[in-house]
Amino acid sequence: DMVEAVIDFFHADIQPLTGKHIVVTAGPTHEPIDPVRYIANRSSGTQGFAIAGALASLGAKVTLVAGPVALETPVGVNRIDVETALEMQGAVEAALPADVAVCVAAVADWRADCDHGQKLKKSKGGLPDLKLTENPDILAGLSKHIEKRPTLVVGFAAETENVIDYAAAKRERKGCDIIVANDVSHATGIMGGHENEVHIISDKGVESWPKLSKTEVAVKLALKIAEYLGK
Amino acid sequence: DMVEAVIDFFHADIQPLTGKHIVVTAGPTHEPIDPVRYIANRSSGTQGFAIAGALASLGAKVTLVAGPVALETPVGVNRIDVETALEMQGAVEAALPADVAVCVAAVADWRADCDHGQKLKKSKGGLPDLKLTENPDILAGLSKHIEKRPTLVVGFAAETENVIDYAAAKRERKGCDIIVANDVSHATGIMGGHENEVHIISDKGVESWPKLSKTEVAVKLALKIAEYLGK
Repeated sequence: DMVEAVIDFFHADIQPLTGKHIVVTAGPTHEPIDPVRYIANRSSGTQGFAIAGALASLGAKVTLVAGPVALETPVGVNRIDVETALEMQGAVEAALPADVAVCVAAVADWRADCDHGQKLKKSKGGLPDLKLTENPDILAGLSKHIEKRPTLVVGFAAETENVIDYAAAKRERKGCDIIVANDVSHATGIMGGHENEVHIISDKGVESWPKLSKTEVAVKLALKIAEYLGK
Repeated sequence: DMVEAVIDFFHADIQPLTGKHIVVTAGPTHEPIDPVRYIANRSSGTQGFAIAGALASLGAKVTLVAGPVALETPVGVNRIDVETALEMQGAVEAALPADVAVCVAAVADWRADCDHGQKLKKSKGGLPDLKLTENPDILAGLSKHIEKRPTLVVGFAAETENVIDYAAAKRERKGCDIIVANDVSHATGIMGGHENEVHIISDKGVESWPKLSKTEVAVKLALKIAEYLGK
């Protein structure tokens, strides 16, 4: 019905993103601590997969770089599965050049800097010797890419407080064009759910959308991207 | 075919575990760091669910305390879903008394000791202020339970090196009767796979089983438990 909604919108099978290559990241990353433990981000991948599908239904060639999720690949989308942030960065880099990048993935900020080959044993103090190292920032890397910066870079910000302020600051810091901000605090039920309530933050200011299904958010965002490229 | 194999073994529908209550833990635990991040153990839950099903097919009343996994509940099993080690401990405690406890779950040794309600922000040094606290030891707690120690406590040891030595030491340390040890190093393909190669370590010494399907391991272990209780 997503495809139908899009076609209805255009009253025909006009595909405004034909000829455009769009890279979408989705899902969490898993950062191994040792062979049995890992650090993960909570992300079902639902919103990112819906966006990849909506962009493809508007005619784009979509490369979806997906962390570990249990989701079907949307029709017409080229999917590359990865596990860690480093693998995701490598897959995104390999997918360039692209006209648009949409970074929906909840990438782990840190990875464990230890020997992943053997099981971590408790240290003398009873606590493990867990050193963390900062992961590459995929969104900032794309936004500040010297050779292959996409025309449009869209990031997501999942916040639990001061949603718009934090997200606007993130947009400045990362150097991306649009930030899609949402409140993932427990009460909203957005994480793992089928609905989303987002704010679109760009150099034009803040546009707040009502609570919509994640599919509707995907279609509206895909149309906004088409509009942006059409200018 | 597991049920058939068991019935074949007995040449009849004799159920040697009828009247026995058995608590099985299975799957990983997820320990939240904040609303979007968590520490997890790798465990599909496959072996623990197969054991719960095999015990039920031998007539036991089975309470399966399951961490977050994507598996169907075996026939005849009473399943309680939990996420964290603390929740798993609470559910196991609430399920007592039991004749047997089989601790297959890959419980996280540590949990993050921080405010889970808000998203963790980077500290000045660029790295998060992640304090870890030791989780309760469910296997040792059952083995040393003053009021309600099950007649038989079975633990699992997933090791990547010195498998039998580490597992035998674990049996002594935890105070359980039997340790089922397996090698989960990457090369074995056991984690997430359908086969398992285990060593049964008890006060009688070490019994090494050939590589079997996880279902076969479950049936053999259920029969061993029935034999133990029948003595």
